[in-house]
Amino acid sequence: MAPDITSPGNDRIKWLVRLRERRHRDTEGLFVVEGSRLYSRALQAGLSPVITFLSEDVDADTVGEVLSVDVAALDKASYRERAEGLIAVFRQMDHSLSAFEVGNGPLLLVAENVEKPGNLGAMLRTVGAAGADALITVGDTVDAHNPNTIRASTGALFSVPLAMTEWDELTPWLTVRGIRVIAATPSGGPSLWKTDLTGPIALVVGSEDRGLTESAVEAAEDIIRIPQAEGPVDSLNVSVSAAILVFEAARQRG
Amino acid sequence: MAPDITSPGNDRIKWLVRLRERRHRDTEGLFVVEGSRLYSRALQAGLSPVITFLSEDVDADTVGEVLSVDVAALDKASYRERAEGLIAVFRQMDHSLSAFEVGNGPLLLVAENVEKPGNLGAMLRTVGAAGADALITVGDTVDAHNPNTIRASTGALFSVPLAMTEWDELTPWLTVRGIRVIAATPSGGPSLWKTDLTGPIALVVGSEDRGLTESAVEAAEDIIRIPQAEGPVDSLNVSVSAAILVFEAARQRG
Repeated sequence: MAPDITSPGNDRIKWLVRLRERRHRDTEGLFVVEGSRLYSRALQAGLSPVITFLSEDVDADTVGEVLSVDVAALDKASYRERAEGLIAVFRQMDHSLSAFEVGNGPLLLVAENVEKPGNLGAMLRTVGAAGADALITVGDTVDAHNPNTIRASTGALFSVPLAMTEWDELTPWLTVRGIRVIAATPSGGPSLWKTDLTGPIALVVGSEDRGLTESAVEAAEDIIRIPQAEGPVDSLNVSVSAAILVFEAARQRG
Repeated sequence: MAPDITSPGNDRIKWLVRLRERRHRDTEGLFVVEGSRLYSRALQAGLSPVITFLSEDVDADTVGEVLSVDVAALDKASYRERAEGLIAVFRQMDHSLSAFEVGNGPLLLVAENVEKPGNLGAMLRTVGAAGADALITVGDTVDAHNPNTIRASTGALFSVPLAMTEWDELTPWLTVRGIRVIAATPSGGPSLWKTDLTGPIALVVGSEDRGLTESAVEAAEDIIRIPQAEGPVDSLNVSVSAAILVFEAARQRG
């Protein structure tokens, strides 16, 4: 049987190409997942695709509306120039703080000004793997629905609670819930290893270039330090710092 | 005064463009550093440039032969299409194991099949920041002199000891020096938090896709686990796993 779509000039393919751009994604409230591995993780997490484009030569478990597409036309629509046989469109998740709740005694990671998709993705994986409760971003954060973020998260974006907000909204939210704010720096303050990281806490990491913002320092009850060797290297990668903090908290919490 | 180079067609600019390709870098035994921040870290680490190309509009402390270049011609030679005003060429460092020695009771990180420049760069930063002794890579490793590796390392490549080798060479090297090999997996074995990580040790991480190789498992005296929550996310980013291990060792070593 001939595929439903054979031409890279097809209107649906052009629509997929437009969704590579954030403004089109945000206007339509959609995001795109490429490859059957990420796709099946999205389904496992309970997401339902709006539509799935499947290459003729690929066998995948799909749900909902599926269009078969010839390989060249699908590759044309891929942001990586190689679609791995499947591109699916999903509705964007709501990452507002108001849509967000956590249980008692949570362990939260708060990351300021995360610019790189790879770092946002890695932090989502870390929060999921450590069994922490959520990632909260503040400031200028890369688009969570950017294909590189999704890819770097290896699907953690679909299952790990994420809120994207600003300090003026976050501080009262944390205060009301009795969550202690602990901010980390490369220098100054006691070592994380000598700090009690049990109980309801939010661990804050600043950006690599700018460090913690004034708002973060104001919000923090404690400033702690990841001990680092003397030397020419000024700091850790931010997703690495976040992981050291979150896993030290996990260690202390048993 | 007119700059030394005004045309993007200049032979020296074409040479810089060729050096973006690994085979040209390896044939000539050279690598390229862009931007005055990385450049000054290379100088701090004791490296000397073969030649430095400096944009007319940039002020930087340079050493050795310097050619002034107009902005457009320099940007043409940049792998990022924006040279930040400075491109310098250095001689490649020797990363062979035979050129390599460590002190007594070392803490080493061994990483298998590191494919992504960002992960290699982040691991170099982690080893430097934790005060560990060296990074050793085995298997199919991304080019250490790739511009994205250098950039992700924020200059740690210039100062952190790095050896690139294979298990058949590494295992006897470790044995002779009495270095205990401890390999990490997402599951199986005791937790890293319940394992003694003091003394001379090499901590091994496998690749995210393939896990530890058989050679790594054979070489390991202990297999340990980074405890991870149940869930759909299968593993941590490899540079994150490496950091959790190395910093736990740093914690135990005081």
